[in-house]
Amino acid sequence: MSDDRTALVRAARTLERLRSQRPRVQCLTNTVAQALTANVLHALGAGASMATHPDEVVDMTVSADALLVNLGTPDTARIAAIHRLAGDKRLGRLPVVLDPVFVQNSALRQDLARVLLASSLRVIKGNAAEIAAVRRLTGFDAAQVAAVVTTGEVDRIEDRTGAVRTFRHGHRWMADVTGLGCALGAVIAACAAVEPDAIDAATAAVSMFGLAGARAGAATDGPGSFAVAFIDALSQLDADTIAEPLA
Amino acid sequence: MSDDRTALVRAARTLERLRSQRPRVQCLTNTVAQALTANVLHALGAGASMATHPDEVVDMTVSADALLVNLGTPDTARIAAIHRLAGDKRLGRLPVVLDPVFVQNSALRQDLARVLLASSLRVIKGNAAEIAAVRRLTGFDAAQVAAVVTTGEVDRIEDRTGAVRTFRHGHRWMADVTGLGCALGAVIAACAAVEPDAIDAATAAVSMFGLAGARAGAATDGPGSFAVAFIDALSQLDADTIAEPLA
Amino acid sequence: MSDDRTALVRAARTLERLRSQRPRVQCLTNTVAQALTANVLHALGAGASMATHPDEVVDMTVSADALLVNLGTPDTARIAAIHRLAGDKRLGRLPVVLDPVFVQNSALRQDLARVLLASSLRVIKGNAAEIAAVRRLTGFDAAQVAAVVTTGEVDRIEDRTGAVRTFRHGHRWMADVTGLGCALGAVIAACAAVEPDAIDAATAAVSMFGLAGARAGAATDGPGSFAVAFIDALSQLDADTIAEPLA
Repeated sequence: MSDDRTALVRAARTLERLRSQRPRVQCLTNTVAQALTANVLHALGAGASMATHPDEVVDMTVSADALLVNLGTPDTARIAAIHRLAGDKRLGRLPVVLDPVFVQNSALRQDLARVLLASSLRVIKGNAAEIAAVRRLTGFDAAQVAAVVTTGEVDRIEDRTGAVRTFRHGHRWMADVTGLGCALGAVIAACAAVEPDAIDAATAAVSMFGLAGARAGAATDGPGSFAVAFIDALSQLDADTIAEPLA
Repeated sequence: MSDDRTALVRAARTLERLRSQRPRVQCLTNTVAQALTANVLHALGAGASMATHPDEVVDMTVSADALLVNLGTPDTARIAAIHRLAGDKRLGRLPVVLDPVFVQNSALRQDLARVLLASSLRVIKGNAAEIAAVRRLTGFDAAQVAAVVTTGEVDRIEDRTGAVRTFRHGHRWMADVTGLGCALGAVIAACAAVEPDAIDAATAAVSMFGLAGARAGAATDGPGSFAVAFIDALSQLDADTIAEPLA
Repeated sequence: MSDDRTALVRAARTLERLRSQRPRVQCLTNTVAQALTANVLHALGAGASMATHPDEVVDMTVSADALLVNLGTPDTARIAAIHRLAGDKRLGRLPVVLDPVFVQNSALRQDLARVLLASSLRVIKGNAAEIAAVRRLTGFDAAQVAAVVTTGEVDRIEDRTGAVRTFRHGHRWMADVTGLGCALGAVIAACAAVEPDAIDAATAAVSMFGLAGARAGAATDGPGSFAVAFIDALSQLDADTIAEPLA
């Protein structure tokens, strides 16, 4: 309880930094989630760029504050971009988040996950099937990254030592809004740009999503109106509502 | 009338199967419609994947329950993917739906339509101009597929013998929501995954769209709020409302 | 004041032409903004196509009424498409609008801007940083195009002589809706298809956006509901509301 309280106070601080520092996240993400991801970042005060071409992705990333790599809809450009990014030492200073979408169904995505795991990752985020597949297929273990975020009815955040925190906020319609899980990966990256502790950054992102989801779900009739209200709820979040979620 | 009644009772059964069996549709579709297509599938209880890379599209399709091929925004990956899919015998067991978007304006899309028509298609869906262009330019005739769906102010479903059923549900704003016609193709594929009779599957999909459109149109102020309410209406559809649309 | 009045009367006439002539804009635009761009065009009575493949983009453009080239998310296909379009004399008859998204951050986009500036452009539209970068990096000057539109809290429209008109309509949430600026480029192209005077066309587009933004902002709770209401407001705009914005 008091641990959760401390975590939420830190999450409130992270939100204030997002709104004042306005970090830009370079999102190498799938075409399905791009628009929602950018809208979610904007609602929290952050910015987005979506470059995929290997000839510009390093330029766009070096000038950004964080990097998300999402393995959905890989294409020739995204594959080449991942190799360029993984091989560029200048990116070591940036927080990098990996979202291994559908990695269990595609050998191509497993290869890309291996390339990224051999570079400098701060956070991995996925659903239970994706995280399990990364562990099983690539020999990944939690000590390689500062935080592993597993989303589901209960969200779990695991640190390097294997210690786990769980979060039960949110709403069942979140799973029906295409790209919302992908957008969470971008928000974790944005939080990590302003909060050096990866566990605190991930906790802040998961808490913001959970609170906005609970509010949006209470006011809407289905996943269509929920998605709209979710963006409004993110934009209305402030430090007080995060630190006192039951008020 | 009694025919329509029977069709709607079958559509109700198809919806129940969607919600319980949760088929995944691999959508090789255009970038414009991807997000809406996935949201529409989710609202009905189905799932979506959107792979386009030729090196993973067969994997993602073999593990899916149905395939949609939509010819919008073709690119090098999608073109290669279509050739791989059309040449893979394992896909014969899956229902495949073709949506020949803007085929009348592009020789490239006409070539892709020919490749797919030479493989194993269950349904073709398009607007009147697209269906006419497929007939005229490729020598297609209705006996090649189990159902031809022509959308417009009146939706038409034609079987192999040329017999036609018409549907007048829906709302004029449906044409203003980008990608909604493309999403219908995915829903036909989802229905065909749980209903072996292609005419029944197409009827179910067209009926669900028509009813959700009529409800959404009655409650909204323009095509923006209509699109949101349409997703809510799909998610609220149940067997009773489909079987008794006038209640 | 009376100048503004005249401009708005002309904007009203342009809207009437959009709704009656229904021009199609071929949008070579980024994947993030595609769906919103098409929805915005539809709400105003115009149409959209989104071809990017170099083997069909000229076909799709020659049969269209205007062309938008937006430099967001360049990929191999879009780069080749830009070279094909810039080199095709038949496109000289069409109004072409360039939106140099993030040109300041990418040498690749600077090269593409140069190729397009050497062809036949009618309008350039961007935010202040993008327009400044085009001027600085490519030697562009306003006399090369019929209108330069610079968006921001105050929108500016500059003609070949350097004369500037400013517009203060709109709402702060417009900047939070991903792709709305990109959609404005498409609307300028649509207006230029029905209004030969580029300054009048740009004024009409900026006025429609400003009025719809002001209305949507007055009725909503955040950028999510704002984006939905904005589409509704565009669809409800008519000649009278444009010509009498304060009524």
